[in-house]
Amino acid sequence: LCPPGVLPLCCRPPSWDRAPRQPPGLPLAPCRAFSNNKIQVDLDESSGIAMMKFKSPPVNSLSLDFLTEFSISLEKLENNRACRGVIITSAIPKIFSSGLDIMEMCGKNVEHYGEFWRAVQEMWLRLYGSNMVTVAAVNGSSPAGGCLIALSCDYRIMAENPKFSIGLNEAQLGIVAPFWFKDTFVNVVGHRVAERSLQLGSLHPAPEALKLGLVDELVPEEKLLEKASAIMAQWLALPDHARQLTKSMMRKALLDRLVTHREEDIKYFINFISKESIQKSLRMYMEMLKKKKS
Amino acid sequence: LCPPGVLPLCCRPPSWDRAPRQPPGLPLAPCRAFSNNKIQVDLDESSGIAMMKFKSPPVNSLSLDFLTEFSISLEKLENNRACRGVIITSAIPKIFSSGLDIMEMCGKNVEHYGEFWRAVQEMWLRLYGSNMVTVAAVNGSSPAGGCLIALSCDYRIMAENPKFSIGLNEAQLGIVAPFWFKDTFVNVVGHRVAERSLQLGSLHPAPEALKLGLVDELVPEEKLLEKASAIMAQWLALPDHARQLTKSMMRKALLDRLVTHREEDIKYFINFISKESIQKSLRMYMEMLKKKKS
Amino acid sequence: LCPPGVLPLCCRPPSWDRAPRQPPGLPLAPCRAFSNNKIQVDLDESSGIAMMKFKSPPVNSLSLDFLTEFSISLEKLENNRACRGVIITSAIPKIFSSGLDIMEMCGKNVEHYGEFWRAVQEMWLRLYGSNMVTVAAVNGSSPAGGCLIALSCDYRIMAENPKFSIGLNEAQLGIVAPFWFKDTFVNVVGHRVAERSLQLGSLHPAPEALKLGLVDELVPEEKLLEKASAIMAQWLALPDHARQLTKSMMRKALLDRLVTHREEDIKYFINFISKESIQKSLRMYMEMLKKKKS
Repeated sequence: LCPPGVLPLCCRPPSWDRAPRQPPGLPLAPCRAFSNNKIQVDLDESSGIAMMKFKSPPVNSLSLDFLTEFSISLEKLENNRACRGVIITSAIPKIFSSGLDIMEMCGKNVEHYGEFWRAVQEMWLRLYGSNMVTVAAVNGSSPAGGCLIALSCDYRIMAENPKFSIGLNEAQLGIVAPFWFKDTFVNVVGHRVAERSLQLGSLHPAPEALKLGLVDELVPEEKLLEKASAIMAQWLALPDHARQLTKSMMRKALLDRLVTHREEDIKYFINFISKESIQKSLRMYMEMLKKKKS
Repeated sequence: LCPPGVLPLCCRPPSWDRAPRQPPGLPLAPCRAFSNNKIQVDLDESSGIAMMKFKSPPVNSLSLDFLTEFSISLEKLENNRACRGVIITSAIPKIFSSGLDIMEMCGKNVEHYGEFWRAVQEMWLRLYGSNMVTVAAVNGSSPAGGCLIALSCDYRIMAENPKFSIGLNEAQLGIVAPFWFKDTFVNVVGHRVAERSLQLGSLHPAPEALKLGLVDELVPEEKLLEKASAIMAQWLALPDHARQLTKSMMRKALLDRLVTHREEDIKYFINFISKESIQKSLRMYMEMLKKKKS
Repeated sequence: LCPPGVLPLCCRPPSWDRAPRQPPGLPLAPCRAFSNNKIQVDLDESSGIAMMKFKSPPVNSLSLDFLTEFSISLEKLENNRACRGVIITSAIPKIFSSGLDIMEMCGKNVEHYGEFWRAVQEMWLRLYGSNMVTVAAVNGSSPAGGCLIALSCDYRIMAENPKFSIGLNEAQLGIVAPFWFKDTFVNVVGHRVAERSLQLGSLHPAPEALKLGLVDELVPEEKLLEKASAIMAQWLALPDHARQLTKSMMRKALLDRLVTHREEDIKYFINFISKESIQKSLRMYMEMLKKKKS
């Protein structure tokens, strides 16, 4: 029985009613890791905090494989009663994530585009709708899809380095952020900032990102994870059940909107990305990136 | 005949077309008071401003009785053509209102929960939808339901005392602010601040409340009422009719949402509050409060 | 094929795919002007930027004639592939536009009110929904409808002169800003600032307008147009197609809302403005203005 605006969440009891995490007599298993090719996950069962590190060189692009592993990792943690919160960061210097992998959107067939887009949606639905506390420790640049990941967390801290920038810069590539990227952005920074930033495809240096409310806090890079843990402890001091229902109440409308329009959104993406003019834009952007490197 | 977004308000003529408030020849009755057990109301008919003081020791809890008297007082003023605005404050030092009375939500039967919740809704519908100018003079702490009262006014001034705090801290108690508390909060501070503050159940000290936009102004405590009157005069300088239609246009969507889902919201509350896990949370919270006192 | 939240926009190719603007061999026509009685338009075809100057003394009132010419000018530019952006400013010192012409709303018949209101709607639909980049260079005061024009642009710069003010001050006149003025305002400054400013009918001096986010930037008056051109160049650096789709995604909900309720909105306006109490308010306001002048 749910009022308008509240997700029919699983009925976990509030955390302070929880059964003890360890059956009595068993030794403590304070830290468990599971990793895959692209993401390293360490769960500290004593604190209930998982650390998730993107480690897909060179720039943590959100390829189909990466997205799939990300969603599986989130699902594993979500289903693990020992895990209450996750800190998301990068194992690669200077970059949090470069966003959607353009290679997945260029010169492929319609089936591939559809599969890829469904994986992008899946990742967002899991992350934005997570019952866990999610803290982004943005330790490098974070354009487009990388920015979306940060925006989808409950709290964002960023390394205090003006060389690192963050933003939904899709318009710079000649493409358009989907409506649910936009909705997520508006919920964080408000309509005006989002309208301007999205139209200009702006990448905001860390200090500007703080000023716009795109991130909540700047921290010297070497203190980023320490700070993320402190923030996490603060959020985990709250009883899970009430916090989860509250989060769901704040985010349900957006999640529902994508769920309702999911197939439509995939069709639109396939149609849009298949256009020769868009393919040309993406090829030009990739060539520009290559030239920059060399 | 109303456009979308505008309440079919009563068709009071604009204030400057109004008939004189006093029939000629009658002596002026500049100040009328009506009080009940828990709220003191003084109406200055010459200025059209009512002063409403909560005086229900020890902490102006919003019990069923208090809520009923509050709604009746608002209705009386609303129907009195001599009244154009109301200043809401507390007669009790250090506390504006402690919010919903936990005693009404603990260990009672289903009928009681339903009656109580309907009274909470009624109060909000009257206050948020009032045609009068409403100014909250927050002269003490104002958690949960107390904060809702302030949020529902047209303007909020708060005593400049960092010991006084304000916020929707329901999550701290293991319960969830209803969607219309949340909507009211979002309309004042925006989505991001609301999301974070509600999930953490934050109580913001006055200076922080100002920074977040939760209150409009801080004033030294001894000048609070003087300032409230000055603000009120500024708002009353506008013709009532246009101001009322404008207020209605801004607030109608939220009011409609509760009116539409009112019974559903009551059922949800009854169901939620009747859970043993929630009852346990509330009992633990009350015991914590008792220990704090002693 | 469009996802929710995206206008079925014309399928102009992205700007960098465009055919050259001039057939080879023809001489360059760098600057074309078309003017009408009330608005001066100069289009620099080499940059793709049009300069539109309101020149309807004494105060650029939005009369039926003015609105019609404004809409026609916008349509001409919109349909001209050589035009990608328009800067809107005033040729009259100290005033950007005084807003809707009260003469059109006073003592006229029902048909006239309907025709006038349709022209106001038409102007806004064209401006707020324009595919071009629109920059308001607000070089004077800009109340009511003048403020709406600025709010409907993509970017607002204002002369750094505290004597110039801007705002939706309808409530001061005893009338109510229509819902789509309100929606446009909320999208720029957020719900709280809009609620307060609209109820008080506030005219904000330039520095305050900047603080509230009502304008994006203040610039010394003599540098206003230079700055507007620089801003425009920044926005035109983006590929048109992606920027247009993004703009449409941000603005479609509001545009749709008026399109859907257009006839209803006209009927409401006619009914409201025909009321004797409202006519009396407007007459009083005009007399007040006359007295101020003399």
